[in-house]
Amino acid sequence: MSHIGKGIVFIGDGMGGRPLPELDGKTTIEAQDTPALDALARGGECGLMDPISPGQAAGSDTAHMAILGYDPFKYYRGRGPFEARGVGIDVRPGDVAFRCNFATVDGRKVLDRRAGRIESGTDELAAAISEGVSHIGEVQCIFAPSVAHRAALVLRGEGLSHEITPVDPHESGVDYWDAKPLPDAEDPEAAQTTADLVNEFVRRSHEILENHPVNQARREAGKLPANIVLPRGVGTAVHLQPIEERYGLHSAMIVEVDLVRGLGHYLKMDVIRVPEATGGYDTDEIAMATAVAAALEDHDFVLANIKAPDVGGHDGDYQMKMEAIGKVDRAIGYLLDHVDFAATTILLTADHSTPCAVGDHSGDPVPVVFHGMGVRPDDVQSYGERPCAKGSIERIRGMDVMPLITSYIGAGKKFGA
Amino acid sequence: MSHIGKGIVFIGDGMGGRPLPELDGKTTIEAQDTPALDALARGGECGLMDPISPGQAAGSDTAHMAILGYDPFKYYRGRGPFEARGVGIDVRPGDVAFRCNFATVDGRKVLDRRAGRIESGTDELAAAISEGVSHIGEVQCIFAPSVAHRAALVLRGEGLSHEITPVDPHESGVDYWDAKPLPDAEDPEAAQTTADLVNEFVRRSHEILENHPVNQARREAGKLPANIVLPRGVGTAVHLQPIEERYGLHSAMIVEVDLVRGLGHYLKMDVIRVPEATGGYDTDEIAMATAVAAALEDHDFVLANIKAPDVGGHDGDYQMKMEAIGKVDRAIGYLLDHVDFAATTILLTADHSTPCAVGDHSGDPVPVVFHGMGVRPDDVQSYGERPCAKGSIERIRGMDVMPLITSYIGAGKKFGA
Repeated sequence: MSHIGKGIVFIGDGMGGRPLPELDGKTTIEAQDTPALDALARGGECGLMDPISPGQAAGSDTAHMAILGYDPFKYYRGRGPFEARGVGIDVRPGDVAFRCNFATVDGRKVLDRRAGRIESGTDELAAAISEGVSHIGEVQCIFAPSVAHRAALVLRGEGLSHEITPVDPHESGVDYWDAKPLPDAEDPEAAQTTADLVNEFVRRSHEILENHPVNQARREAGKLPANIVLPRGVGTAVHLQPIEERYGLHSAMIVEVDLVRGLGHYLKMDVIRVPEATGGYDTDEIAMATAVAAALEDHDFVLANIKAPDVGGHDGDYQMKMEAIGKVDRAIGYLLDHVDFAATTILLTADHSTPCAVGDHSGDPVPVVFHGMGVRPDDVQSYGERPCAKGSIERIRGMDVMPLITSYIGAGKKFGA
Repeated sequence: MSHIGKGIVFIGDGMGGRPLPELDGKTTIEAQDTPALDALARGGECGLMDPISPGQAAGSDTAHMAILGYDPFKYYRGRGPFEARGVGIDVRPGDVAFRCNFATVDGRKVLDRRAGRIESGTDELAAAISEGVSHIGEVQCIFAPSVAHRAALVLRGEGLSHEITPVDPHESGVDYWDAKPLPDAEDPEAAQTTADLVNEFVRRSHEILENHPVNQARREAGKLPANIVLPRGVGTAVHLQPIEERYGLHSAMIVEVDLVRGLGHYLKMDVIRVPEATGGYDTDEIAMATAVAAALEDHDFVLANIKAPDVGGHDGDYQMKMEAIGKVDRAIGYLLDHVDFAATTILLTADHSTPCAVGDHSGDPVPVVFHGMGVRPDDVQSYGERPCAKGSIERIRGMDVMPLITSYIGAGKKFGA
């Protein structure tokens, strides 16, 4: 009677949409042929989900937080801590963290935000920065490189704040910005201190990198030097209870986006890398599904995310979005063949809508289907925004997902006697 | 891609109802022929809405607050501030405000709560009060007349409270009451101070008005003198962020009820008056709809309210309520012909139910339909309580309305990255 099943949350990133005239008023999910998703729906319980709350457009980070049960209104203080954790920095509560780019500047002018899309040498550049600017005053500066031009910075010390503006101007050909306190900062003094620190860090990164041997070699090879670090995406780290501690589920994450991966690390999930999962239209969905099925062997819970539908939505390309949804369908088809759904419950959904006609995340709810162990199948016959709206799940929020999954698989705890 | 559309919230006041045996178990909305509302439903997304929360009967003020996104549980401290703002007093946070009647008393006995429905002369009476009792001790008394026997009073000073009982006994032929602290007042001292101030204000209003020339003339003409001011509807003013600041939408309000109009002023909306909008059964719904369409020319968001259905509900007259719903239908018909719904989203709903069989506001949810830009039409074919309950919106709350509208029209802000 106390057998505990396994749980899967499978996310087609940004998969929700709006009706398109090109598709006779259907959404991309509704228009695409999705035999596996429809099979899930036929044997499952369907509904709609507001990832955060009705009408609230969600980021990937806030949506995944909510779906994993961490209220973003309470715990979200910017993406920086997830980025920094994603590149391996042991972020601690109170740290102020940034994602950064190695960039090319001439004086203050940004020639290239990505330093000629630098591919190698950033480990050495990062080591030089770590050595040259390990502290500013009492505050520790922890800097680590990621892939290509990407990196992360953590400031550790007393009296810091995330309420500052970015340094990276988000375009080339203009001057980079000075970090400044937000006008409505709750703690203006901490914000000013932090802005000063960031500006000093940027100045010293330029000093250290300008004539670094890696950049001398790049110049000689006709490449742009990576001669400055531009921080953005600031956030303050808060304590999030590890997922295993919270739900008693040994958990894995198989996703393609660094930001979400960083959240997984932050929650002390096993973050499993699948080399064939590219995060683009060309991702290998069967490799991902295979990894999910394998992870279930020695985990109680797996969260997976295929990024491609969101790319199609941002690109405003409904054909590519439909093809990407086809990839999600094939991944689910693989799982239907390889997972024992008598002892496993899967939620198939999206983290938010990215309608092609909007080209960005919208506040539209996303379709959900719970399938497998413990569910009460309704009579919805296909997966999609409108079909699922008729299902027995009605309308839930992202924060409801983990309580529902743990309930279906018998891992929930009774509240009361 | 970043085009922002326009939004309309159109409210049939108190339009929600319950099944009536006289209508073969239909509600007044369901029984009335409403071709325009049904067209909205056929092309829109339908559902039910709890204006505040399930089962909670809402006032017009609290319902409109919630629908505009200001949680009444958090911000509502009585109607007085909206009434006072509606008659033009520049209410400030901390003020304690009242709606008042000019009334006729003999000693303490109320002969007529409306001073013979006085139509003119109240400006002079109010001026005499403002001069004669501009302060009581350190507390400023701001008094302003409205239409007919109506007026508003604001007390401005330190240590005041809205936790007191009214002076107006709500019926003639009885003594007026002394204001008293509520037995469970959180700040009994402030409540006692405020009650004493109000009682003193009432006493002095009587002194000032009893032999005022306006009243001498009224007596000579055989009319009842307006010889006292009776406050009620006390409330403490709190800060509400102006709607334009909150949503970035330049907003107008076209309604018939002073109380709601006061809320509009309070939120710094453009409150547009339509002379033909009487607030009664005889209101000119086409004049209102014309004003709404015109307001959309130079506003991003318009809230409109036709009062007549609520009047029918309070009167317990299902035929008049049905006719009033017919007026709402004709107003919507006008908008369907004159507004570009490719770039506009409308919500048609009620602020609460006023079932004829109840004769007052009830806690029943109200039907909603979102139509136009960004919606995913479901297969609901007509507007009404039961048809809408089958729609894809499922069940929302008043507080969800503005996030949804801003999401549909592309004016929402993403939370997270």
